[in-house]
Parts: sequence; structure tokens; C-alpha cells
Amino acid sequence: MDPHLTVIENGSIAIKGDTIAYIGSDMNPSLSASKIIDANGSIILPGLVNGHTHAAMTLFRGLADDIPLMEWLSGYIFPAESHIDADFVHTGSLLACAEMILSGTTTFCDMYMFADEVAKAAKQSSMRSLVGEGLYDFPSPNYGSIEKGFEYTERLIQKWKNDPLISIAVEAHSPYTCSPYLLKTGHAIAQKHGVPLVIHVAETLTELAEIQAKYGKKPFEFMEFLGILGPHIIADHCVHLDDSEIERMIRHRVNVITNPASNMKLASGIAPVTRLIADGLTVGLGTDGCASNNNLDMLLEMDTVAKLQKIALMDPTALDAVTVLKMATCEGAKACALGDLTGSLELGKKADIIIVDTRKPHLTPMYNPYSHLVYSAGGADVSHSIINGRLVMEYRRLLTLDLEDILFRAKEKAVLVKQWLSRI
Amino acid sequence: MDPHLTVIENGSIAIKGDTIAYIGSDMNPSLSASKIIDANGSIILPGLVNGHTHAAMTLFRGLADDIPLMEWLSGYIFPAESHIDADFVHTGSLLACAEMILSGTTTFCDMYMFADEVAKAAKQSSMRSLVGEGLYDFPSPNYGSIEKGFEYTERLIQKWKNDPLISIAVEAHSPYTCSPYLLKTGHAIAQKHGVPLVIHVAETLTELAEIQAKYGKKPFEFMEFLGILGPHIIADHCVHLDDSEIERMIRHRVNVITNPASNMKLASGIAPVTRLIADGLTVGLGTDGCASNNNLDMLLEMDTVAKLQKIALMDPTALDAVTVLKMATCEGAKACALGDLTGSLELGKKADIIIVDTRKPHLTPMYNPYSHLVYSAGGADVSHSIINGRLVMEYRRLLTLDLEDILFRAKEKAVLVKQWLSRI
Repeated sequence: MDPHLTVIENGSIAIKGDTIAYIGSDMNPSLSASKIIDANGSIILPGLVNGHTHAAMTLFRGLADDIPLMEWLSGYIFPAESHIDADFVHTGSLLACAEMILSGTTTFCDMYMFADEVAKAAKQSSMRSLVGEGLYDFPSPNYGSIEKGFEYTERLIQKWKNDPLISIAVEAHSPYTCSPYLLKTGHAIAQKHGVPLVIHVAETLTELAEIQAKYGKKPFEFMEFLGILGPHIIADHCVHLDDSEIERMIRHRVNVITNPASNMKLASGIAPVTRLIADGLTVGLGTDGCASNNNLDMLLEMDTVAKLQKIALMDPTALDAVTVLKMATCEGAKACALGDLTGSLELGKKADIIIVDTRKPHLTPMYNPYSHLVYSAGGADVSHSIINGRLVMEYRRLLTLDLEDILFRAKEKAVLVKQWLSRI
Repeated sequence: MDPHLTVIENGSIAIKGDTIAYIGSDMNPSLSASKIIDANGSIILPGLVNGHTHAAMTLFRGLADDIPLMEWLSGYIFPAESHIDADFVHTGSLLACAEMILSGTTTFCDMYMFADEVAKAAKQSSMRSLVGEGLYDFPSPNYGSIEKGFEYTERLIQKWKNDPLISIAVEAHSPYTCSPYLLKTGHAIAQKHGVPLVIHVAETLTELAEIQAKYGKKPFEFMEFLGILGPHIIADHCVHLDDSEIERMIRHRVNVITNPASNMKLASGIAPVTRLIADGLTVGLGTDGCASNNNLDMLLEMDTVAKLQKIALMDPTALDAVTVLKMATCEGAKACALGDLTGSLELGKKADIIIVDTRKPHLTPMYNPYSHLVYSAGGADVSHSIINGRLVMEYRRLLTLDLEDILFRAKEKAVLVKQWLSRI
């Protein structure tokens, strides 16, 4: 995966510090290494970029499925979330990092409360991430009222600004949960610090109706009216769009993250991904949170996005495997403003690399590596992961995290969740 | 999984010979065992039933994706299939059995050429299966003309009739590739021996148009006209149905196998699964062949069928996890006329049992085992498999198959496939 989609058979990659120092079809004789990984029979790829998730929601995985969206939100997710604290978010984020590393993700973009805990968990895991505090009009269990939310965000930006792994974004939840004041202030903070503004847009028809009723506008139209659209926007979902909305997205070079599994499971709708890519927009791929997916497996998400576009357009050629793999790597990185660092295997880029072991029945024989990665492989086929030059998983053993401890702590938090909900 | 959906926590199951001899919430003190498997932290389930596949097509996995259906068939699949022989089918079927056991399938229903080789591979793997020779009007590389195809099918029925694992069906490819004579004769053979008649029905709109043009009828209408509908029919796909067709399926108690991943990938359409189940039809789940999926992972297929129904109906409550797990176990077994033997954990049933290890980040915490199995788990989470009382996989190691040898032989066959196609 480089800009020319070069496929090297029997090649090698060398890493120096945090950086890719050599890629070629043979071992460079002038290089020596303190550690050599034999990837015979495997595919070496840039680490996958999960463009949109709510990591700590791993702790709500499977809590309430197969129920109407509003009942899911108001009967389970919102009541549970009203109780969460820093430690809850830290534990859930560590659980997510463990799952993501084990399934080939090396970079993720997160939106949640107590975002500093998400950043700390990512740092502890040695994962690359774009993190931000979810901002909205109702009181937050973290920051309380919105002015404190802005302050919290500014502190996050200051705290992590020189970190090699963690980047901070301003994250306004959505045009229907954020006032014009919140959206404009969030935008101003993002512009001031030169960071992205992450926002859910046009996920459900209910949302469209709400914004229409409130402002007489469509979501992107409303955001354009507020003057907050631009190439710093990372718009999650983007399911319900008409020609005029897509025109606006193109005009302002908005970045898109699509979340097909979540959109299917919550019956939100089908994003016009094929068209958005044809129109030249940068479209990455995300799992969304575990409560609506219910996993963080980007290899499965690739399969889902390809198949969903094919069936939606009744066209088996829609969204081919190469395009999908780009969404999960270089395009996703670009969408998250991390394209200079990660998302491809190129000299000088940060060494974010995964190894997919293909010596398995479901990956045999091998006619086309793209097909196998998108349509046949799953997260469990990833054997090694390197992030920023550091080996974080070796033969599926996590090297930066204590898995037993994380699983134990996650189960303790689940007991709390059940207590919270039993009191309703 | 029993008819009452009993969930036993901290229980045990005992097997005597090929049969389930005890199920309960504690170890029965009157039982002793020569082998004990500790399934602590795991879910014990009936083995999954893959209701429709073409096992040997594992050897075409990833050969040609993202291209129009007719180009896929006439440019790749049909030319390659014109060269295949018994050894090719045997190798591909062994590869499929390895993949299926590794992903939790214990029973499969197959349709392919050289079906005796499929049966032999299943027997060698110690898998339960319903196997039949694909019958159609054009010459077959196995049997040549159709009269020989009928003879071959009769010989298969005789050969395997007392086998504890292998059952034989008559398998007429579809109403658009089989003449009325073939369909009626196939039906007569099935009736004579009391075996199922497996057939692809209403998979694509092209097929509907063809049957309409030829016979002025819809697919099930045509089959009803021929007098071949009945509860012995296992109808694969059933995507394009109107009220009158569904009425016919109900009247004749037709069994259905849905194949959502294949239907999405080939852009065939979306089967009205939720409605068929509400109408009381028996609906199982299948992966279809690997050339159109591209794997045989029934745990992933469960996720796909649930999400596809939700998005198709724009209803997050459609096809809940419990219903889906039944499709992949008891309902699938029933659809394949194997419901008396397998598909549930009940005293006296054959011991077809899998163990799903949940001590993993993506299966933690655990609020609802059904949700985890359908929405979070994948084939790689299955640690053990027992078929007909025999342990065939232990801690993911295959006990009945030589995996290295199968992978080696599969790669050799792929070299042949590339040679065949390069000559076109």
C-alpha cells in the first residue's frame, strides 16, 4: 500500500526508530537489525485506521441489541452513560485498544467523554489516535456545562500537543445535539489550534427531521450557514445526503468516515459511499462504537462496506477491494489529518505496520491479496503489529498491555453497569 | 440451544458414543469420562449448520471479484469448472472441511460435481453432511449427459445409505438450468428414496426473466406446475419472491436456505427472510460457495443476515440474535432434513458440539451470549469441535485432517486453475 499500489512479493521492510527506513524486493545488504520478524506466508500492510469509534463503549457491547434506536439510547445507553467516570472510560478504552491491536488497527479516531482517559489508554497501548471530548448541549458527566467543555478541550490540546502518538480534535457531537453557539465556538477553537473538528452528520432520518424543524435546513446546509464547513471537518456517517448536500461537502472539502455495520445494525440507512468517492471526497472507514456494531474489527468492516454498496446499487462491481483497502488505510489516515504520518508503507512514514498470516484454509489459495484482505480475512488473522516503530503485538501476544488485567477490570465495570440499569 | 432456549450457566455435557448422554447444571456424579474438556469461560453450542455451499469452490476463492455476474461466470467460473476432475473436488472439499471445522460448522449441505469426492472428504474430516451431484442440462465434467447423472445420483444414494455422517440428496441446479424432464425425474428419484431435492430458486432477476420468457411462470409457480414442490424441497437463495410465490412455498412447506453474504457480493438482491420466518417457513443459513462470499464462516454469516434484514426493513428489531442463532443451528438442521440428529443440545441427539472461547477482548464483557455469538464473534473464536461424538478440533488443532498437506495440495490446484484460465 503506497500511492502506486505497489505489490512486492518476497520483499522486506526495515524500521529505524519510529520510521520506515527501507522497503524493497530483497533484504537490503547494507542494513542490519537488532530484531528480525519472519513474515513468510504473510501479507505486510500499513496498520488499519479506524476512522470513527467510541472506544470505551466496549463496556456496553451486547448490552441491548435488536431494539428500537430511541429505546436503545434512552433505556440503556444514556442512563448508563450518566454514571460513567474517568476510570470507567479508561478501562473501556484499554479494552478497545487491546481489541483493536489484536485485529490490525494501529490508529483510531475516538469521540467520548473523559477524553483524556482515552488518550492515556491509547498512549499506554502505544496506539496512534485522534482523540477529543464529545461536546453537546446537555450536561456531561465529565465537564458539566459547555464552557467547561471548551476549557477541557483546550487543556487536552495543550497537554498532548507534542506527543508522537496522540493528536487532539475538537469534537462536537452533532448538529442536532449542539447549539449554533457550541458549533461556532468549537469551530473557532479548532481553527485557532489548527486541529480537526469531528462531528456526526446526517446519520438518521430523525436527525434530518429535527434539524429541518429547528432551522429549516439540511445538516450540511446548516453547518455551511454557521460558517463552520471546511477541510478540517471529519464528518461521521453521512448517510442521508441529497445532491445539494453532496455539493456542499465537495465545495468545502469535508472528510467523511462511513460506518456501515453500525448503520445496518441500527437501521440508520446506507451512505452513498461509492458516489462520495467518485466525487473526489476523502472517505475513510470506521466501526463506530461497540454498542452498535458489536466489534472493532476493521477487516470485517471492509467486507461489510464493499458488500453493502454492491447490494445498495445492485452492482457487483461497486466499491472494489482495492478501493476498500485504501479507505481502511491511506484514505482513512488522510481523512483524520494523519495522512503524512501513517496509512501507507512509504520511506519516511512512521512505521505503523501489520502482518496478516495467510497460511490458513480460509486464506488459501491466494489469487489476489486485495480480495483476501477484504472478503476473506478477519482480525484474528493479524499476527503482528508495529506502531510508531514499536512492536505492540507478536504472534498475537500483546506486548504493551496486560490482557488478563484488562479483561478482569472490564468484567468489574460490567457489574456496575448492570447495577446502574437495575435501578431505573 | 434446545427447543426451550435453555441457558445453563456453569453446566456440563456428557457424551456416550456418538450421542449426548447428559446435559445439566452440574457434573452428574454417576458419570465418569475417559476424556474431559474444560470449557471454562466458553459458550457450549450445537455445531453450526451451513445449509448451502459448494465446498470445492474454496479453490476459486478470490479468483475473480468485483466484476459483473455474467463475466464472473462465463469468464472465470465456467471455464475453470470445465477442467475440474475428481481429485480437484476432493482437494477443494478437504480445504473447505478444514475451514468449516475451524470456524464452528459441523454439518454442511453441499452441491457440486463429483459429489462422491465431497462425501469422501466429509467422511475423512468426520463432518456431517448432506451431499448431492449438481444436475443440469449442459454436459458435466463428471457424468457427461443427464441420464448418467441420474445413475450417478442413484449410486451415491446406495453407496452412502447407511453412513452415520453422510446423507445424499438429489440436487437439481435450478429451474433455469434444468429442463422440465430433469426436474421431474430428479423429483421422482428423490421421492423413491425419501431424500431431499436441493435446488437454487429465485436467486437473481435474470433467472426470473428467463423462466418467465421460457415458461410464462415464476420459479415456484413453474415447479408447482411440474408437481415437484413439497416438504422435501430445500430451496437455496429465494431472493425474489412475491406474495403468490410465498403462498406456494407455505402451501408446499418448502425449506429455505438464505445466503446473505453471497447475495450482497453478487448484488443478487435481499431475501425476505424476516417475512418467510414470520410465515412459519423453516429458514436455514448458508455461506454459498467461497467464490462468492469469500469464506465459509457461519458466525460471520449470522451477523450479515441480521444486519441485512435490519437495513432492508429499516427496522433495528428485525431478525434478532436468538432467531439468527436458531437459523444457524436447529432450523438449518431441520431445513436439511437432519433435525432429528443435530442442531440442538438435547439428550439423545448426536453429539455435534462446539465450544466458543469468550475470554477475549472482543467478547468481553458478557451481557448476552446471543448478541456476542451473532454480532461479535467470528470463526476463529471456536476452540473445540465434536462431531458425532468424535473430537475433531482441540484448541484449534484439527485432529482428523493434515492441514499442511491440504494447504500444499490446494496451492498446487491453484496453479492448475491459473494455467486453465491463461489458455482462454
